[in-house]
Amino acid sequence: MQWVGPAHNGHLRLLDQTRLPGETLYLECRSVEEVWQAIRRLSVRGAPAIGVAAGYACVLAVQNQAQPQEALAQAADYLATSRPTAVNLSWALQRMRRVRPVSADALLAEARAIHQEDAAMCRRIGEHGLALLRRALAAAVAPAGHLPGLLTHCNAGALATGGIGTATAPMYLGAQQGLKFCVYVDETRPLLQGARLTAYELMAAGIDVTLICDDMAAAVMRQGRVQMVITGADRIAGNGDTANKIGTYNLAVLARHHGLPFYIAAPSSTFDLSLADGSQIPIELRGSEEITEGFGRRTAPAGVKTYSPAFDVTPHELITALITERGVIQPVTAQRLREVLAN
Amino acid sequence: MQWVGPAHNGHLRLLDQTRLPGETLYLECRSVEEVWQAIRRLSVRGAPAIGVAAGYACVLAVQNQAQPQEALAQAADYLATSRPTAVNLSWALQRMRRVRPVSADALLAEARAIHQEDAAMCRRIGEHGLALLRRALAAAVAPAGHLPGLLTHCNAGALATGGIGTATAPMYLGAQQGLKFCVYVDETRPLLQGARLTAYELMAAGIDVTLICDDMAAAVMRQGRVQMVITGADRIAGNGDTANKIGTYNLAVLARHHGLPFYIAAPSSTFDLSLADGSQIPIELRGSEEITEGFGRRTAPAGVKTYSPAFDVTPHELITALITERGVIQPVTAQRLREVLAN
Repeated sequence: MQWVGPAHNGHLRLLDQTRLPGETLYLECRSVEEVWQAIRRLSVRGAPAIGVAAGYACVLAVQNQAQPQEALAQAADYLATSRPTAVNLSWALQRMRRVRPVSADALLAEARAIHQEDAAMCRRIGEHGLALLRRALAAAVAPAGHLPGLLTHCNAGALATGGIGTATAPMYLGAQQGLKFCVYVDETRPLLQGARLTAYELMAAGIDVTLICDDMAAAVMRQGRVQMVITGADRIAGNGDTANKIGTYNLAVLARHHGLPFYIAAPSSTFDLSLADGSQIPIELRGSEEITEGFGRRTAPAGVKTYSPAFDVTPHELITALITERGVIQPVTAQRLREVLAN
Repeated sequence: MQWVGPAHNGHLRLLDQTRLPGETLYLECRSVEEVWQAIRRLSVRGAPAIGVAAGYACVLAVQNQAQPQEALAQAADYLATSRPTAVNLSWALQRMRRVRPVSADALLAEARAIHQEDAAMCRRIGEHGLALLRRALAAAVAPAGHLPGLLTHCNAGALATGGIGTATAPMYLGAQQGLKFCVYVDETRPLLQGARLTAYELMAAGIDVTLICDDMAAAVMRQGRVQMVITGADRIAGNGDTANKIGTYNLAVLARHHGLPFYIAAPSSTFDLSLADGSQIPIELRGSEEITEGFGRRTAPAGVKTYSPAFDVTPHELITALITERGVIQPVTAQRLREVLAN
């Protein structure tokens, strides 16, 4: 994600992630509406990246506007509707709304700050996560001929953030430091973010990646190939219950059954302390066609009903630790959560 | 599946299930090689249906052969290599090998007997399963606005057998008898047998079907929408450990976590009492392309490693009962298994 051109009359350049891994196509967004559409159709996705994109979109909103303050307020309200579950979106928009005086330059400076802080946040999450990864690898007894393994779901990677990702951050840092491990990546139906994005970015970094279908995770765990599970989060309630990509809860249950640590890596901006627990997190329902014709041709009977929640909620008791840039929340309790976030 | 033409110089007509749900295309198999290919590429799939097809293929093998006995032996050896895990295949081939004298007419009679017995077997499984379904529905507390639900994986349906299927048999009989329920169908990656086949055949029968992705099953269970899980089996060891389509073990773990009954429906021909437990069941590994470009376009980076076992093994302790045409094996123990199979 990149702001292009001078502060005034610049535009936002976004990698269209819906085209990966086949095509590397950039969108040149010149209006708030174009960014809203890009977020809505998942061209940019991942809670932190959505926040960064929304920040830059606010700059687009006020360029050449006689009433920049009104334009900003209107744009922020509108952008907030693009993905209802991602709390980073409303968090970033709140920061943008508070900028005074409202000018393209001032908003661009704030958007850039959000972007840079995100990169620093990723690195700190990576450092905290790396200690947990080292511990898991030290205890690992992988089957003969196999490296010890991590398992992840969806994409909480560099593509989803302004830095080295959240769930992927310990992997990138671990690889830099020469740790020996492999990563099993769930393909993550229906939109295949694991196959299209996580496999793509980890392979590009030279990390040993094995792609599996979501329904293979249990078998891989049973074979002892996985030593820890780590995913990102879209919203975390005050008690640690975590909304993340559909299928995350599935992995948490499997990890518990197989005695594996299950980690969520997410920035503090993902926490929504106004929610007592996960039952209050709104869950977006997606359309049928993502399931029935997601691979370029119809793979289910015409007219079949579907149920397609974009997220599920993993209850805090199944989460070994929440890894944030402010520290590791373990055990996952409301009290420990508030202690770490106060750092 | 249909034998077409007179006993001599007839051929086998197979619905090409790889084309469903978009196309209804029949293969006209006139050689053993064509049937081998049809089994190998999953045009005909499902353990019982594979057995029936292999039976008819033996008739093709001896038509117009001067040495029918040698031709039969050779064909049976060859057909056995088409899918190594399905024990029904070797079971059906054993029956065909024992036919004496070896003639096309005698082999056709035996193949037809295998087919008809399969239909009768499905009905008896359905009757046993229906009692368990009635019990689950009687105890059901579905969320407001939802019918009580079953969840199934892959296709252990009419398309996989010579009758009304195995896992689907209680659904067909229950619907006939006016029971009110809905069925959640896992799409079943990588080959989407649930989306393409199970959704297709249950919808055709007027059953209330909701298609989900495999990684949504846990969320659906947590919401109380599912009252029982039922799948088929490819091979069952002497202690009840069950090999079935990859993802079945995943569901068994989830069902246990959510306190739901987990049933396997399978004919007695699926049992392999020569195996003490599931660790001895050979598991076929499939190629990468089924994951990375399964449906007409590439959905993962070129060159990504994959791990794609066609089956997983569910340990007997996670199975509430095995439903066979000879009765219900509950609890799933080696002793109870032998008692019921001796019926």
